[in-house]
Order: sequence, then structure tokens, then C-alpha cells
Amino acid sequence: MGVVASPALAQGVAPFAPTGDAEDALGALIALVRPDLEACNRTIVERMASPVALIPQVAAHIVAAGGKRLRPLLTLAAARMCGYQGGLRHVHLAACVEFIHTATLLHDDVVDESALRRGLASANAVFGNKASVLVGDFLFARAFELMVADGSLKVLDILARTASTIAEGEVLQLTTQNDLATTEARYLDVIRGKTATLFAAACQVGAVVADRPEAQEAALAEYGMNVGIGFQLVDDALDYAADEVKLGKTVGDDFREGKITLPVLVAYAAGDDGERRFWRRTIEQSEQNADDLVHAVELIARHQAIRATLERATRSAAEAKAKLSVFPDSPIKACLLRVADYTVNRAR
Amino acid sequence: MGVVASPALAQGVAPFAPTGDAEDALGALIALVRPDLEACNRTIVERMASPVALIPQVAAHIVAAGGKRLRPLLTLAAARMCGYQGGLRHVHLAACVEFIHTATLLHDDVVDESALRRGLASANAVFGNKASVLVGDFLFARAFELMVADGSLKVLDILARTASTIAEGEVLQLTTQNDLATTEARYLDVIRGKTATLFAAACQVGAVVADRPEAQEAALAEYGMNVGIGFQLVDDALDYAADEVKLGKTVGDDFREGKITLPVLVAYAAGDDGERRFWRRTIEQSEQNADDLVHAVELIARHQAIRATLERATRSAAEAKAKLSVFPDSPIKACLLRVADYTVNRAR
Repeated sequence: MGVVASPALAQGVAPFAPTGDAEDALGALIALVRPDLEACNRTIVERMASPVALIPQVAAHIVAAGGKRLRPLLTLAAARMCGYQGGLRHVHLAACVEFIHTATLLHDDVVDESALRRGLASANAVFGNKASVLVGDFLFARAFELMVADGSLKVLDILARTASTIAEGEVLQLTTQNDLATTEARYLDVIRGKTATLFAAACQVGAVVADRPEAQEAALAEYGMNVGIGFQLVDDALDYAADEVKLGKTVGDDFREGKITLPVLVAYAAGDDGERRFWRRTIEQSEQNADDLVHAVELIARHQAIRATLERATRSAAEAKAKLSVFPDSPIKACLLRVADYTVNRAR
Repeated sequence: MGVVASPALAQGVAPFAPTGDAEDALGALIALVRPDLEACNRTIVERMASPVALIPQVAAHIVAAGGKRLRPLLTLAAARMCGYQGGLRHVHLAACVEFIHTATLLHDDVVDESALRRGLASANAVFGNKASVLVGDFLFARAFELMVADGSLKVLDILARTASTIAEGEVLQLTTQNDLATTEARYLDVIRGKTATLFAAACQVGAVVADRPEAQEAALAEYGMNVGIGFQLVDDALDYAADEVKLGKTVGDDFREGKITLPVLVAYAAGDDGERRFWRRTIEQSEQNADDLVHAVELIARHQAIRATLERATRSAAEAKAKLSVFPDSPIKACLLRVADYTVNRAR
């Protein structure tokens, strides 16, 4: 079984490297929690260990592939904003959140047969479906071991519910696939489940370890939920718009899979009869020709569906920021406000 | 997406129907814990529920397919043998154990591409790989929700470790696949991990809910571990020996997948040069012709490899029974002793 040679792989985890202005918000946040983030990276490497060599190989392949560690960063930042001191609970739970995320990526690779993930060959392409499923299971179980070691039933409750909500969201997405009758509300249910819930939980556990009142916990959860919704909306927009190299992801994946996303729903709703026939053929009947993706991108541009999607994301970011009003101003809070904008601005 | 019409499916879960003398031990055990088992079945159905309709459909397909509920039965019986009274903790944890088992079956279906599982089309054949992976994830997460609701960090610790050990065992099996240099010790590591650990945990949590001393907990865990090892050994023997209809499983699955099991290791070790060439071609190089399975079964018979495998299983059953000596005699203990034999005798 081959292993892709990669310096990041050899190193275990890749350092985050901001690549432009849009990443400054994240860079500023990282600067504020750098020792925590480094401790989190060490925990991730330590807890990927297994006497079964293939496990750290597959796990490192995806964990090392240059992910932004956005979700664990949110846990670390939320905990610090809430004044958490005196331990590594936030670090361990941040690692746990990243493990859950990584497990879903591995299972997504199987599910979606995506050829590229973060610019490297997907784990499934390199190691096969079997390894992706089973190593995903391992990381998921490891996440629970980390939570159990943390010892808080409240945290366990939040993250166990999150895990089933993620799975429900993914299955719901499967149900809506190829179905142009999917409503925008249902689409939002999907992205809340598959993406935003984990952002919400990542933020909420930061408040929990700092023992903050329910209202602050809820505010952070809603901040995370809205950041996550915005993040996924932008992701869905980028799949019809982005420069493939910059995104490190194959453009048009969603189109080829017949995934129902907001850009498609907007363009379909605004389309004339001929356009709707095009969408039904390509998305519902999965009959696609070589130039269909280009045409889809044209139709989406014609009806300003990317703009509509990004506007919806901007609204989510604004809602996220409003939720933080219950917290006093601080450098970390300022960064979290900028991170909400970053999730939207990274598209432009 | 089609649903296989099945009365069991409509009913949610199938009742257990003993089919012969070998099943009497299980039947006797069921008779002793019937109200508990019925409560467990109700919990399973309730906790499979989801607003996402595909989830209970897929879950019911596999949960309803007539599984023997062997693992939850062990939890229920262990708890009762330990004198547990006054609640439904054992019932909820038994359901949780079955969910973990079901999740691994769903992921196994993806992994092994097995055409038959328990005599019905595998979930993956009916619903597709995607649904099998994601519904498996959902059931796994639901198992953790049930544990969190139970509220015991000790139980959570046992079952979280069990979940990662199962995944490690499955990945180790992947590593040994097609590798005739696999030692018997390594093969035993695989079956301990992928199968026996869950039997051990299923039994151990019965002692935990009844608040028994460590020594009794450990004794039940070792009973379960040995029952599980015997169970898997017999499973591996049956794959080269059983009557397909009776097993409800395609014979020769392991052979076709190049899985390394004890019957193959024994026959390979005892084989002459020509036989070893046969095994290398079929198992290591995965080059198989139509009549190779028949020849493999002949070679396994020639070297009495089934007998050797069943003898090893019988030894495990004896070890399992010996572990129960720390418990006073009782009708449930008598049944658990018989269950250890059942796991071996079901092959004959």
C-alpha cells in the first residue's frame, strides 16, 4: 500500500501558513493562542498513535494535509475568551473536535469519491475505501476516549449529540441529492447538520471548560453555528467559482455528484424552461457531458446565484458577530469577530 | 432508493427464533431474561428513530435481519447474574452494545463488499455504500448518546476503548489481508480486536452496573473475550465448511477477499510446494478461478484445518467457562456456561 511522500506527512502535522490578506483574521487569532495550538497539534499526533502502523499513516495523510485547524482554533479561542486558565482541557477537547472533523472527512472521501481533498490525493484514493472507513472509525473512537479522559458528562453530551447530528446531516444530504425539489430550508438543515453543528459545539465547549453561565455557552454555540453556516455556504459557492489551485479542491465536485447546494437552487428557481431542463438532466438524471460544468457555471453567473449565496453567508457572519455582544471586549473577541468575516471573505 | 420488503423490517426488529438443538443454550438464556431483552429491543427501535427517514430504514434493514442479539444478551445476563436490580441501565447499555455491533456490520459491508449478510442482501447492496457508512456513523454516535445518558464514566471508558480497539483490529486485518506470512499470534490479535473485545465489554458492563468488585468485572471481561475468540474462530471455520443457507452467508467470502484466517494458515503451513503455490496465487496474488474455492476447501479438509480451528475454539470456550468460577452457581450462570459451548457447537 503506497504512501504519498510529503514533508508535511513526515512532520506529522503541517504548520498553518497564512497565504494572503483574507487569512489575516485567522493569523491574528493563531498568534493569540499559539502555545495552545501547538499543544493541540502535539496531542493530535500523540493520540493518532497506534501499534497498527496503517492508522497513523492514513490519519497523518489527512491531518497533515494543511487543514487550517479552524474548529480546534475556535475551541481554544472560545475557552481563552471565557477566561479559562489552569489546565489543558481546552487543548484536549480541541484535538477531539479535530478528530471528529477528520473522521467525517475520511468518511466523506469514501462517500463522495472526491479525487482531491485539500490539494493532495484523498486518503481514499491513496489507501483505499477500506482504510478510510476504518481509520475514520478509529479517530472517532479516539475522540470519545479523549472526552472520557476529560471527564465532563456535559462535554460528552454536547459532542455525542453533535456526532449524531453530523451523521443525520450527511444522510439528509444523501436524501436530497439529485432532487431539485429540495427547498432552501432543507438545504440549510443539511449544512447545519453536516457542518455548522460541529462549529457550534467547538465554540460551546470552550465556554463549558471555563464554567461560564448558560447564556454565554448558548451565545458561543450560536456564534459557532452561524460561522459554520456561512463557512459551508461559501464552500458551496466556491465549488462553482473558485480557482482550483487556490482551493486545493476539484471545482465542480458538487455538480458532478448532483449535490443540491444554494447556487444550484437559486439558478434553477430563476431559470427558464430550457435551463430547468438542463438542470434536471445534469443534476436529477446525472447525465453530464464534458462542457456541462462550464454551462452550469454560466447559468449560475447569469442569475447571480453566487452573489445570492455569498449574501446569505454574509448575513450568517453578521448574526454570528451579534451573538458575541454578551462578552466584554478583548483582543480574542476582536479576532473571533474577524474570523466570522474571514469565513465569508475567503471567497473573494 | 428501494427498500426490501420484509415482515421483520416492518416490525422493526425480528424476534429470535431458535432453529435447532445447538441453539438451545441461547434459547434457555433468552427465557431467563426475556423481559429485559424485549425492553432492549424496544430501546433499539426507539433510538434508531430520526427525522431523516433513510436512517431508520437502513438501520432496521440490518437490525431486523434476524441477528441473535448475542452481545446484548450477554450484557443482560451478566448484569442479572451479578444481581443487578432496580433500573434499566443494563437494558440501555445492551442496546448500546448492539448499536456498536450494528455500526461495525454496516461498515464491514462497505469494506468487504459482501453480497450476503444474514441471508438478506447486505445494506450496502440495497442502499449503497454511502448510506451504510453514514448510518453506521449515526448508530455509533447514538451508542455514545445512550452511554452518556447512562452517566457512568467507567462504562464510557470501557466502551470508548472498545470502539477504538475494534477499529484497530479491523485495520490490522486489512494489513494482514493477502499476507500468508501472518502468524497465528497476529491472526489472534485481529480477532481479539475486531470481535472479542466487544464481547468482553458487553459482559464487563453487566458487572459494572451491578457494582461488583474489580475481580468479578475482570472475570466477566475474560469470559466475554474467550467466548468472542471462540465465536470468531468458528465463524472463520464456517466460511470454508458451512451450508450456505443455514449460515445465511456466502461461503467463501474470506477466500475471495484473501482474508487470512486460521483454516488457511493451518492448511498453508501443512501444505506441500504445490499447495503453497496454490495459496500464494489465490490469497496473495488474488488470482482466483471458478473452481479454486472447491480446491481450497479440499486442501483445508486434507490437513484437518477445520478440526484444528474448532479445537482452538473449544479451548477458548473452556477458558471462558473457567473464568466464571468466581461466581456462585445460578440458573443464569449455568446458561452462560452453555452459551460458551454454543459458540463452538453451532458449527456442527
